[in-house]
Amino acid sequence: MTETAPRPTLEAVAARAGVSRATASRVVNGGDGVREPLVERVRRAVDELGYVPNQAARSLVTKRHDAVAVVVAEPETRVFADPFFALQLRGISKELTAHDNQLVLLLTEGRDDHARVGRYLAGGHVDGALVFSLHLDDPLPGLIRRAGIPTVFGGRPGWSDGDGGDVVYVDSDNRGGARDAVRHLVALGRTRVAHITGPLDQTSAADRLDGYRDVMADADPRLVVPGDFTPAGGERAMRELLDHRPDVDAVFAANDLTAAGALRVLREHGRRVPEDVAVIGFDDMLPVAEQTDPPLTTVRQDIEEMGRLMARLLLRGPDGPHPGEQAPRSGVVLPTTLVRRASA
Amino acid sequence: MTETAPRPTLEAVAARAGVSRATASRVVNGGDGVREPLVERVRRAVDELGYVPNQAARSLVTKRHDAVAVVVAEPETRVFADPFFALQLRGISKELTAHDNQLVLLLTEGRDDHARVGRYLAGGHVDGALVFSLHLDDPLPGLIRRAGIPTVFGGRPGWSDGDGGDVVYVDSDNRGGARDAVRHLVALGRTRVAHITGPLDQTSAADRLDGYRDVMADADPRLVVPGDFTPAGGERAMRELLDHRPDVDAVFAANDLTAAGALRVLREHGRRVPEDVAVIGFDDMLPVAEQTDPPLTTVRQDIEEMGRLMARLLLRGPDGPHPGEQAPRSGVVLPTTLVRRASA
Repeated sequence: MTETAPRPTLEAVAARAGVSRATASRVVNGGDGVREPLVERVRRAVDELGYVPNQAARSLVTKRHDAVAVVVAEPETRVFADPFFALQLRGISKELTAHDNQLVLLLTEGRDDHARVGRYLAGGHVDGALVFSLHLDDPLPGLIRRAGIPTVFGGRPGWSDGDGGDVVYVDSDNRGGARDAVRHLVALGRTRVAHITGPLDQTSAADRLDGYRDVMADADPRLVVPGDFTPAGGERAMRELLDHRPDVDAVFAANDLTAAGALRVLREHGRRVPEDVAVIGFDDMLPVAEQTDPPLTTVRQDIEEMGRLMARLLLRGPDGPHPGEQAPRSGVVLPTTLVRRASA
Repeated sequence: MTETAPRPTLEAVAARAGVSRATASRVVNGGDGVREPLVERVRRAVDELGYVPNQAARSLVTKRHDAVAVVVAEPETRVFADPFFALQLRGISKELTAHDNQLVLLLTEGRDDHARVGRYLAGGHVDGALVFSLHLDDPLPGLIRRAGIPTVFGGRPGWSDGDGGDVVYVDSDNRGGARDAVRHLVALGRTRVAHITGPLDQTSAADRLDGYRDVMADADPRLVVPGDFTPAGGERAMRELLDHRPDVDAVFAANDLTAAGALRVLREHGRRVPEDVAVIGFDDMLPVAEQTDPPLTTVRQDIEEMGRLMARLLLRGPDGPHPGEQAPRSGVVLPTTLVRRASA
């Protein structure tokens, strides 16, 4: 048994350093205007006495910061360019604010910065983390596990396949939604249905491809072309499709931004939509899906609600009350609906 | 003099709580899977012993987190809707990443949440703060002062007028840029030059109005109408202008988004730009300024560079080296340039 030592006071720090209480306070509170040798003496005294400033000490002991980190595993340029993230953040922000929790968005320039994000998460600055847009070979999940803070993922994490473990996530029924889209195209009489994929190191994109294949099991492999969830990727993929399969009569695009790019290229090539080529997207991202020419038939997922639900699950914790719903210990999968507009 | 007490160890916490070291570790590191009564006993032991986990303790003592908070004093919806903020954040992100500092963006639903932001800033989670889009009656500056962390402001803070104090900020020459714009309109022979303002509780908007008045000292007060830096605000203001002064022959809009809204209303009313009404914006926000119809003559400020400079000033600190430039203890004001396109 160790004896209970009283927590050292600021006065003790000042006395040990041989400075006034005001000077010690300035150093401890990160203020400027104290000469370097004095700063050093105060820091040494802090270190030797194990002094901990009050407010920070309290949050270390209670382990509550009333703050939640949000990590989008994409470069900040994409976070601001793709309205998907703004929508998900909107849901998260509303829910956290309703519980007086601070939203702490950790931005990066890319994957090389994820080790630093991991250090911040481990550093005792937040009560938990919401993480989305994970890619398969991302070091973040491991870093988060080591940080040891409660986490909810947006989208089914790829590595949890099979182990059915205790990873909590919120996802949409990507595979079922994709099946609905492709079945709709087939029901319209289309026989050469193509798919422009998302980045296949993300489960959302892989699941949509699986949904396409559920319906089009025997399709020509050249009808499946890679995209990256961006309009530019949709343009590139559509050009490739028209090169290799000029007889294509329908396209299921992995998201609405991809579909918007594909529509532009079809117009350039004088293909009428939906008469010559029917097009379906995924997301029902507004205003994008309504403002394309023609307006986009798409698979609707409630992105803002996904964000809200992620925050709610994190705040309640695995053992908290979940009125009116099951307490999920792993995934919550939200349904999707096909929204019919002019493009298919 | 207080005796130097050794910092209590995790073993001591476990012993005092009567649990294993592994259980104590799980509780201290925020992990789940420990029964509530044990959690309570460990927490009490932590409290009584003044135990501080290692990583957090280290950062409290060294006072370095290698993390910088960014606070945009606007609701998150506006942060994501206005490309100005994305550009400024891009500059900040590049500079912080180059110095391996984590960008911690604190989002809010609005001003009611600023007290919570102040608590986070005071809580020992970041080494400093970058704050922009301040409004005059915002409680943030006071909260930040109390938090006692180094801060650089984007835009001249309104309250520092006159006291010439030690507030560090980065701004553009809003007044000079506005003068250039209005002088250009006058040089084109326009005599009924209107101004759609920004929100006048922000110094950037107030300074641009002052620049307009420097040139148009005797203008009809009805030629000055309020906007809010959004396209919708620009539309409302332009309608008001056409109602009250249908003979208006030029408009200086407080920013490009405002100008884009004004251009839409002018087109609706069959006014030709620039023949009937010449229009100038502010920002040179791309692609907005190039994609308006007609492309926008505007006052260019380097928004990304402003963000980069804010981060650089914060990381260097007031006494750090500033090769090739003055060490500013207050404001750095960047020049603007008039970019001529078709609208004026």
